[in-house]
Amino acid sequence: MSVVAVVGAGLIGRAWAIGFARAGHEVRLFDETQGAAAKAKDFAAEALTLLASEGLLEDQKAADVLARFSLVTSLEKALDGVVHVQESTPEDLDIKIAVYRRLDALAAPHVVLASSTSAILPSRFTADLKGRHRCLVVHPINPPYLIPAAEIVPAPWTAADVIERTRTFLLAMGQAPIVMKKEIDGFVMNRMQGALLEEAFRLVADGFASIEDIDVGIREGLALRWSFMGPFETIDLNAPGGISDYIERYQQIYERLFPSMQRRVDWAGPVLALAEADRRKKLPAAKLGERALWRDRQLMALMAHKRRARRDIGE
Amino acid sequence: MSVVAVVGAGLIGRAWAIGFARAGHEVRLFDETQGAAAKAKDFAAEALTLLASEGLLEDQKAADVLARFSLVTSLEKALDGVVHVQESTPEDLDIKIAVYRRLDALAAPHVVLASSTSAILPSRFTADLKGRHRCLVVHPINPPYLIPAAEIVPAPWTAADVIERTRTFLLAMGQAPIVMKKEIDGFVMNRMQGALLEEAFRLVADGFASIEDIDVGIREGLALRWSFMGPFETIDLNAPGGISDYIERYQQIYERLFPSMQRRVDWAGPVLALAEADRRKKLPAAKLGERALWRDRQLMALMAHKRRARRDIGE
Repeated sequence: MSVVAVVGAGLIGRAWAIGFARAGHEVRLFDETQGAAAKAKDFAAEALTLLASEGLLEDQKAADVLARFSLVTSLEKALDGVVHVQESTPEDLDIKIAVYRRLDALAAPHVVLASSTSAILPSRFTADLKGRHRCLVVHPINPPYLIPAAEIVPAPWTAADVIERTRTFLLAMGQAPIVMKKEIDGFVMNRMQGALLEEAFRLVADGFASIEDIDVGIREGLALRWSFMGPFETIDLNAPGGISDYIERYQQIYERLFPSMQRRVDWAGPVLALAEADRRKKLPAAKLGERALWRDRQLMALMAHKRRARRDIGE
Repeated sequence: MSVVAVVGAGLIGRAWAIGFARAGHEVRLFDETQGAAAKAKDFAAEALTLLASEGLLEDQKAADVLARFSLVTSLEKALDGVVHVQESTPEDLDIKIAVYRRLDALAAPHVVLASSTSAILPSRFTADLKGRHRCLVVHPINPPYLIPAAEIVPAPWTAADVIERTRTFLLAMGQAPIVMKKEIDGFVMNRMQGALLEEAFRLVADGFASIEDIDVGIREGLALRWSFMGPFETIDLNAPGGISDYIERYQQIYERLFPSMQRRVDWAGPVLALAEADRRKKLPAAKLGERALWRDRQLMALMAHKRRARRDIGE
């Protein structure tokens, strides 16, 4: 096992740290804000206890995993002896530029410098670095210790072997890496989420359905098959002759919908009042935090279920 | 319990029949094609055995559920004494018009005439009927005995009490009905599926990701949360202050993606060769049927999991 640095110990950094430690890596946790790394470790202690109770730590004890965390007080100490740096500082271009300048200056030449950013292209904060070939984005879905998918997004100058080492590293820790062939705003997952949300907001804004109707249609409908197959395998199995047959039968239906999807809806416009009223009726604002814990427990149970199903029914 | 007619015993009709019978209804199964209803009953026998083994028949025996099927040889016999007709004939406007003319002439006045169509607006085949107020679409996701969501789509003249009776009927049999406020091409679910697929095909066509990358991003990523929350609850929990806070923080990111989503990709164009090659490498054409059974077993296990999770972790 290796040593990994987590730089920035907020929501995303702390979640990565749990995943790295669970995979057996020593984790150096660094955050400029005093006390932030210690708070992240406290969170990890609770999360690891829950993971153990769901059978998601294999045969490890929560305390043994937690013992792999070190809180360090400088970037220099964080980077000492590591193979991988997971940078999870705030989503601000100037911050990323400044942090990457320091990371590249301090880290040994073979160390991979991965950013968790969801919204900034890697070329925008690594162009001028001497070690820009070892920089890339590894964007998780939060929280990465419960959700395997993570996008590897190279800048135009990221070296092929850096991409491959990162992919192997993520696979070995149980993530499901997607390797993008080149960068694009939104990467893969936020582009798909954005396309779906845009249509959902449009349907609500135009009075066809409610916020709750949309959620029912996804959680009791489309996302069931997607949660173990994805959209392409789903349509491949939805026509007797596979995906070509599906496209021949149904593309014309989808094509007809396209023109009415060209108008943007301002999500902060009148539709927001509907969305906010509908959500707050289902869940008062004071209970958002409690509900996030419910979500994480649901995710843990779902991951445990998916493991069993893979074993019993097959991959 | 009531008597329900299933008119058209193909893929969709037979799946509805299983759901109706499981809920305790007597099912009259009719199909113009000789032998089709009998074949559908054979399929139901197998499916019910699997459902029983997954604990999805409550305390019923598969044989008792199957005993509620009657194969009938005329539409008149199918409609005798029923409260609900689920029409699942081929997706062809002329066929729908002809079938609905007969259904409306033969069915007692209080009977609801629901169509399973996914692609034809209810106003297009019910406008001239005397009983057009009792006609609507109830569009399932296949197979409805495993996937709860179903869209109720009224024509402009569908009576409010017909919509409400249909909603109550579906709820009582364990479906999760979405009531659309008015009709639109693609209804709710295919519009959301179409928006997501369109972006997925575009990402593959433009060389950013592979078919398999997209499937990983959804099945190991986005669809995990969606499968128990839907997209709106997901974003409601993705910012400390709920959905308004999320929109304030992130709408600008999604807004930036929108212009690059305005170009249609022909799914049957060059991208199809990539999709077909990728899918057939993962799954030879000869194994599509076997894989569809795997999908149904995965769906059954997922439904059983969701029930347990609702009970143990809460709705």
